[in-house]
Amino acid sequence: MELIDGNQIATTIVAELKAAVAALGGRPPCLALVRVGDDPASVSYVKKKEKTAEEIGVTSRVILPPVTITQDELFKLIDDLNADPAVDGILVQSPLPKHIDEVAVFRRVSPHKDVDGFNTINLGKVAQEDETGFVACTPAGIMELLARSQVDLKGKHVVVLGRSLIVGKPVALLALQKKAGANGTVTICHSATANLPAITRQADVLIAAIGRAEFVTADMVKPGAVIIDVGINRVADATKKSGYRLVGDVNFPAVSPLAAKITPVPGGVGPMTVAMLMSNTLKARRLAATAR
Amino acid sequence: MELIDGNQIATTIVAELKAAVAALGGRPPCLALVRVGDDPASVSYVKKKEKTAEEIGVTSRVILPPVTITQDELFKLIDDLNADPAVDGILVQSPLPKHIDEVAVFRRVSPHKDVDGFNTINLGKVAQEDETGFVACTPAGIMELLARSQVDLKGKHVVVLGRSLIVGKPVALLALQKKAGANGTVTICHSATANLPAITRQADVLIAAIGRAEFVTADMVKPGAVIIDVGINRVADATKKSGYRLVGDVNFPAVSPLAAKITPVPGGVGPMTVAMLMSNTLKARRLAATAR
Repeated sequence: MELIDGNQIATTIVAELKAAVAALGGRPPCLALVRVGDDPASVSYVKKKEKTAEEIGVTSRVILPPVTITQDELFKLIDDLNADPAVDGILVQSPLPKHIDEVAVFRRVSPHKDVDGFNTINLGKVAQEDETGFVACTPAGIMELLARSQVDLKGKHVVVLGRSLIVGKPVALLALQKKAGANGTVTICHSATANLPAITRQADVLIAAIGRAEFVTADMVKPGAVIIDVGINRVADATKKSGYRLVGDVNFPAVSPLAAKITPVPGGVGPMTVAMLMSNTLKARRLAATAR
Repeated sequence: MELIDGNQIATTIVAELKAAVAALGGRPPCLALVRVGDDPASVSYVKKKEKTAEEIGVTSRVILPPVTITQDELFKLIDDLNADPAVDGILVQSPLPKHIDEVAVFRRVSPHKDVDGFNTINLGKVAQEDETGFVACTPAGIMELLARSQVDLKGKHVVVLGRSLIVGKPVALLALQKKAGANGTVTICHSATANLPAITRQADVLIAAIGRAEFVTADMVKPGAVIIDVGINRVADATKKSGYRLVGDVNFPAVSPLAAKITPVPGGVGPMTVAMLMSNTLKARRLAATAR
């Protein structure tokens, strides 16, 4: 069994991006980070993004509207960033307060600055295999992890557990693309799937993204499979100071001995997400530099 | 074995649409049909669409630019139709001459008038399960055939053969949606799939859309499966006056005895496409009547 080390791969990508940014002519790429309110997880995610941006040489502009901001005010704020030629990428940190329509906000971000890849047009472009768009960071990170671990999906059966808009569906569409590294046969399973273990046992590559702690057990996995665990779940643990520990959607102790390659949680897919956000920001900067 | 009669189901839908159009207040729905040049298949498709529109009470406006039209001129023509409040739906008949970028043309059609469902935004909305968009006519027709044949996909394994942008991918996304009638477990196979018969034999519902004459043989099908044949292929036949006959992607004589339900070719999916185009045009008319 080989561990797919997301921290190490992300570190390599960050170093590559830093070199690419240094080689850019003109001003550095600029990423606007919009965080509404003070949700503790959001505070920590945005801080991590700021820190990585700084490391790479990407300018970040952090905007902190109060939790009472109206949807129209937030639209206005996004419209201003869309129109600002000094801003290349815009990220609106999820989750937003309940009085705001999150999908409408993501759709408001200009497709050319949508470094989170949540705009409807960019999702459509993934289906169309149109590389002018932006791929959402988690599915892009999964494909990058596989490519850098020498896992070629061609002719392989890829089983995706979960059909979410931000992971399951886009990663399925990416794995299906007719291009080098992809070209997999893809099955998408979910809560209504019958005989789930019989299907997941067919997977040469199993991508678990259902948000249920240690859901994938040894009987659901074919020996020699590659396992990508997207889940990040808290489970109570009295031995920890925090009172909990983080586990994935895969029962790691039981499944890892069977796997050819497997991502740990934490330290697998997680670190890739911020690296891909920075990669998208550099892409947006390059797009902005060419005529549209 | 039960034959799924696409002609009969399409006739029922046309009658329903006729009643719905008659019950509409204000002007009738208007569909612009743009046909570039005189490709014989396109001439016949557009004629069929005009005829069905007339039957339902939809006004059609047929526009016949010469095959020498430039891409910019075609864009201008589409922009005018996009801006015309008397036009609800716009269809640009495929194929277009080689000097024109087809995807760019489809993207030029306003998403609100895109009754063909080929605009990137409308494809993204299928993935997002956002019902304000338009679903492409062939995949929409397949879902309608299944629903009207009492085939509920929930908990079923749906295998889609083919990953095209206009059939395979959108029908896979539709079958996967978390809504009544859908909710299937979905596998997408294609030219690079290994052990194809072992996968198609798992299908409770098999949707064949690869454009290869009589490709699906009896050994690829589980007894009791529902078979939807999207293919329309010409094969040489000296006994026919035309010198050919039409066959699907399924070897009908060999497979039909095994199937619980199966669509014939012709007379299965084909007739549904025009019916769904008219359904989309009525939807566009209703959307136009409400504030955007």
